[in-house]
Amino acid sequence: MLIIRDAFLGTRRFDQFQSNLGITRHRLSERLGKLVDAGVLVKVPYNERPLRHEYRLTRKGLGLYPVLMSLAHWGDEWMDKGEGAPLEYVHQNCGQKTQPTLTCSECHEPLRPEEVTPRLGSALKELAERLRVEGETFDEIPPLLRRSV
Amino acid sequence: MLIIRDAFLGTRRFDQFQSNLGITRHRLSERLGKLVDAGVLVKVPYNERPLRHEYRLTRKGLGLYPVLMSLAHWGDEWMDKGEGAPLEYVHQNCGQKTQPTLTCSECHEPLRPEEVTPRLGSALKELAERLRVEGETFDEIPPLLRRSV
Repeated sequence: MLIIRDAFLGTRRFDQFQSNLGITRHRLSERLGKLVDAGVLVKVPYNERPLRHEYRLTRKGLGLYPVLMSLAHWGDEWMDKGEGAPLEYVHQNCGQKTQPTLTCSECHEPLRPEEVTPRLGSALKELAERLRVEGETFDEIPPLLRRSV
Repeated sequence: MLIIRDAFLGTRRFDQFQSNLGITRHRLSERLGKLVDAGVLVKVPYNERPLRHEYRLTRKGLGLYPVLMSLAHWGDEWMDKGEGAPLEYVHQNCGQKTQPTLTCSECHEPLRPEEVTPRLGSALKELAERLRVEGETFDEIPPLLRRSV
């Protein structure tokens, strides 16, 4: 997660990752390899002689942006110890300091857990239907937790 | 993360978590303890004799909803192997199948990494100013990666 965050902040080279994250070369190398295998990062040569590679986010990796921003925002809200967020984010399109907000693609209102109901997707629905025909049962998904403490 | 996801789906009791997640009691107990220590879950008695506890999400825990939904959505987009998402989400307020979308709190447009610039928050800005006065330098934050591969 920290490697991906660093990549979003513009880090691409092994030594930069290492000095930013302060982990051993062995561990960093192993983790970068896993992210490449997962298709989140891609290894691209930036120098021919000697051959040197850098790591760039793929489209799949860039797709993690909402996850990272949501997590950073949560950290700012709950972990700041009263000192305020270390980083603020400016949305260039409107020029404002932005708070990332998860909204509904259809009505554009903020999504709250108590207002969202999961249901089986099409593949699982077919499976459930087949099982029902065969006389088996398929657990329903519990409604999302509606109340906290 | 899987424990928290399970809690959002309504799981509260130790045995339910265990059968849903399939991890050892020892490991589950250790992880639930960490989440309680972190203030994400709280242990609440639901029975007096014998004394039994359940685990509920706190407000801090509920604040992780955008992180989990973004991660689930990313998984559905990039990991579905062509079978479609296992779960769909219906937004009760509008009745539509929703795609969680990260948007700007100010202009309500979707947030894209290349359109968001991080800057130092107030606490760090003061620190940077003090260091500058003392003749020290403070690395600027690199602009976010603008292009992928």
